[in-house]
Amino acid sequence: MTKTNLGKFFEDFRLGQTIRHATPRTVTIGDVAIYNGLFGARFAVQSSDAFAETIGYPRAPVDDLLVFHVVFGKTVPDVSLNAVANLGYANCRFLAPVYPGDTLSATSEVIGLKENSSRKTGIVFVRTTGCRQDGGKVLEYVRWVMVRKRDEAAPVPGDHVPRLPDAVLPSTLGDACPRIDVAAYDFTLAGSPSRFGDYAVGEKIDHVDGITVEEAEHQIATRLYQNTARIHFDQFSAAQGRFGRRLIYGGHVISLARAISFNGLANAFHIAAINGGRHVAPLFAGGTVFAWTEVLGASELPGRSDVGALRLRTVATKDRPCADFPYKNGEEYDPAVLLDLDYWVLIPR
Amino acid sequence: MTKTNLGKFFEDFRLGQTIRHATPRTVTIGDVAIYNGLFGARFAVQSSDAFAETIGYPRAPVDDLLVFHVVFGKTVPDVSLNAVANLGYANCRFLAPVYPGDTLSATSEVIGLKENSSRKTGIVFVRTTGCRQDGGKVLEYVRWVMVRKRDEAAPVPGDHVPRLPDAVLPSTLGDACPRIDVAAYDFTLAGSPSRFGDYAVGEKIDHVDGITVEEAEHQIATRLYQNTARIHFDQFSAAQGRFGRRLIYGGHVISLARAISFNGLANAFHIAAINGGRHVAPLFAGGTVFAWTEVLGASELPGRSDVGALRLRTVATKDRPCADFPYKNGEEYDPAVLLDLDYWVLIPR
Amino acid sequence: MTKTNLGKFFEDFRLGQTIRHATPRTVTIGDVAIYNGLFGARFAVQSSDAFAETIGYPRAPVDDLLVFHVVFGKTVPDVSLNAVANLGYANCRFLAPVYPGDTLSATSEVIGLKENSSRKTGIVFVRTTGCRQDGGKVLEYVRWVMVRKRDEAAPVPGDHVPRLPDAVLPSTLGDACPRIDVAAYDFTLAGSPSRFGDYAVGEKIDHVDGITVEEAEHQIATRLYQNTARIHFDQFSAAQGRFGRRLIYGGHVISLARAISFNGLANAFHIAAINGGRHVAPLFAGGTVFAWTEVLGASELPGRSDVGALRLRTVATKDRPCADFPYKNGEEYDPAVLLDLDYWVLIPR
Repeated sequence: MTKTNLGKFFEDFRLGQTIRHATPRTVTIGDVAIYNGLFGARFAVQSSDAFAETIGYPRAPVDDLLVFHVVFGKTVPDVSLNAVANLGYANCRFLAPVYPGDTLSATSEVIGLKENSSRKTGIVFVRTTGCRQDGGKVLEYVRWVMVRKRDEAAPVPGDHVPRLPDAVLPSTLGDACPRIDVAAYDFTLAGSPSRFGDYAVGEKIDHVDGITVEEAEHQIATRLYQNTARIHFDQFSAAQGRFGRRLIYGGHVISLARAISFNGLANAFHIAAINGGRHVAPLFAGGTVFAWTEVLGASELPGRSDVGALRLRTVATKDRPCADFPYKNGEEYDPAVLLDLDYWVLIPR
Repeated sequence: MTKTNLGKFFEDFRLGQTIRHATPRTVTIGDVAIYNGLFGARFAVQSSDAFAETIGYPRAPVDDLLVFHVVFGKTVPDVSLNAVANLGYANCRFLAPVYPGDTLSATSEVIGLKENSSRKTGIVFVRTTGCRQDGGKVLEYVRWVMVRKRDEAAPVPGDHVPRLPDAVLPSTLGDACPRIDVAAYDFTLAGSPSRFGDYAVGEKIDHVDGITVEEAEHQIATRLYQNTARIHFDQFSAAQGRFGRRLIYGGHVISLARAISFNGLANAFHIAAINGGRHVAPLFAGGTVFAWTEVLGASELPGRSDVGALRLRTVATKDRPCADFPYKNGEEYDPAVLLDLDYWVLIPR
Repeated sequence: MTKTNLGKFFEDFRLGQTIRHATPRTVTIGDVAIYNGLFGARFAVQSSDAFAETIGYPRAPVDDLLVFHVVFGKTVPDVSLNAVANLGYANCRFLAPVYPGDTLSATSEVIGLKENSSRKTGIVFVRTTGCRQDGGKVLEYVRWVMVRKRDEAAPVPGDHVPRLPDAVLPSTLGDACPRIDVAAYDFTLAGSPSRFGDYAVGEKIDHVDGITVEEAEHQIATRLYQNTARIHFDQFSAAQGRFGRRLIYGGHVISLARAISFNGLANAFHIAAINGGRHVAPLFAGGTVFAWTEVLGASELPGRSDVGALRLRTVATKDRPCADFPYKNGEEYDPAVLLDLDYWVLIPR
């Protein structure tokens, strides 16, 4: 039995511990095609080699979230196989473009540990880094997750909660976006005339479209990322759990919301950073995801006149169109809300 | 809200108007693989680089219908987001082979407008052209669709209904098929000994096989084409509509019928033109598609001794095997009929 | 009707007959991506070009079972379209690595025929060979299948049952695995420290994870292989059959079991041979597959110090975790058992 990975429990983590994750993964145009088939993304830069080349990329880059999911997937067997909940993300930055053919691997450092008062679980904070085959970093993010203890009585180290920034600084954005030739950027072909300057802080955009999720779809997506969390794949076990059903990987909702957001944000072609994200409610197959976005901020990038950064809050809902921008009722989220995502996108100026 | 595309209504179209569609799309071997996984096509030319090279292609071309669907998909946000029904196709010609790596974009010209007597809807005729990254045309077709008016009282231009040919002339076929070396064409490997001369006008072929469609499958296909018609993806809204369910993209039925038609038409490796097509009835997930074909005509191509053209009517049905060739009972279609497609294929002589 | 393939019946086969199968198929990184999305395989050699190159492959090879399924699929229209049951495999050897871009074709020789006492069916034994575009053999296996007779009264040749080996000899393994540089093989990145010498004959490994199968998934997989067996795709006809439902291709269970076996066998990166396999029970959509493995044998390879061979029995079950290694109760299989697979894997020493 010792050859089987049953996953780490809370008491198995050590502050400062570094974990090199299996399995390295070459991301191909095959993966990109499946991603497109599952989410229907339409951003021109990622969709067209010709478009990408025209504005200065060597070819169409891999969708940022596909990179995120592949790196994230690698961490699951080592970090969250015994997780109760994926609590949040912070300080997530895309550091270099990834192109089809690049091989991604991942390493995590344990940067925080905090036992819960029940002593049954604890919160593990990891900073995960995704790298290319040449060692170049492509992604870095902090994630915290509630992990079961194997043994309630097991001693654990004292609490250490890392200090995390509320938002990524605009001065650190843009590393994963080459300087683009805005004069060559065809806004009609990209699907919208709206540029950086056309978005106002406080503006809210209903993305209108809804997408229903099927079991086969989220399973294919999540296996594509080599994410091994059982709750996404194993109905036999899920039937005995708290939901009675397979839970859809939270990242699936993020990708759906991003694809839906094209309708209103067609030129926001690159996610530069994720400031924070919260999976407010679980999603199950059969649910239809809608989304809306509020512009939280706008910032120029130091030394760059080609693109600007918009800070966005995209809210995804279940079975609830977003014409009236459902979010919170007082302190509580609207019961339809699935996802509350705060992130930076780059958009031509 | 102005940043969101809610689609054009009938009164928004102008005769002669030209629309450049978003999003350019590089078609890759990843897309081809998904297409194969969804439809199970077995035509040797599209399936095998080695086979294609042997007969004179530089490599396996992309399936004609995948090209059609990708070009069609681009037109949806601009033409048919507010469509009530996709009424027909005419004069569809494949003009050049498409290879993996080519980037496709699309333009449509409004060539006809006709308000319906109810004044609630009108028919829009567009001629859509699909182009490669180098500007070369790969596909041209006319489509007409019934589109809602935003405002019944809105004034509309006078009716203009374009004259459309009943069938594409054989002399214009063949542009998308390089001259092939028939001596090198291995009929055993291709799956059938039957050539151009072996098919007789009036001959009927039952394709025997049936394929059941799942929600995940048609959603993946249709998103792969970046087709944004809500009725295919959004069960929440569909539940309140006339069907109560997601409607399967009509092009999905065409692709299924084409794949099924391999059994009986294995050497009809290229669709050169679509003379006309009618989606007779809607298809929903769970239905099993069968198909049969009648040979409507046969024609040599001017100056070509390698391939000949067969004009085919392929009829697809739902939950109804086709051994007795169900079609029409008097003027009415058999209730099992889904699709009535009239097209030209090329086949070795 | 003569243009349609209705499949061979038992009396159509002749001993010694050779069948060249349609359709040649170029296996691409698109196919590999779909395979990964469907099964979630995590073996580093197949997952990463960089990893594969480091140890001596020119690039990541195609998963052995994807090669098997593609070759197998080609045989269906000629061998098993009228099969009642797929009875077994033997002497299956992988003879050369397959890389994306290779085109596979297949030939079968009828090596045995035996009518059943009912005279309604008979057993057909074929030796199938899969080849690359350059004629190089990549795979060879014997399969036997029970095929219906068209006409009970039809005369058939005398019985001939081929002698088949219980197991492939270790001396014939390894042709499809280039000599690897074990010093460069990163066991952490591959997901486990366990090497050839760490496995003991008789050792049992519970692979823990379970995967639920959806209709869309097995249909996509099986069409990807161009396998045309109707029972996998046609719910309308299946509804009238003995199961009332679509049957999942047995090879799907093999691929699931293999992917699941990563957890415990992460370095067993290559299936060198299949000694025998039995589909003990049918699987239908909605079932969750679990698996466990017993090490049946271990052998060095003549002249090779890089890898050793483990002979494994992997048992897959339905809706039944395998912590207690369910197999047989006396002569009878445990009712949860789906698959009993006896095969050789190569693993670094």
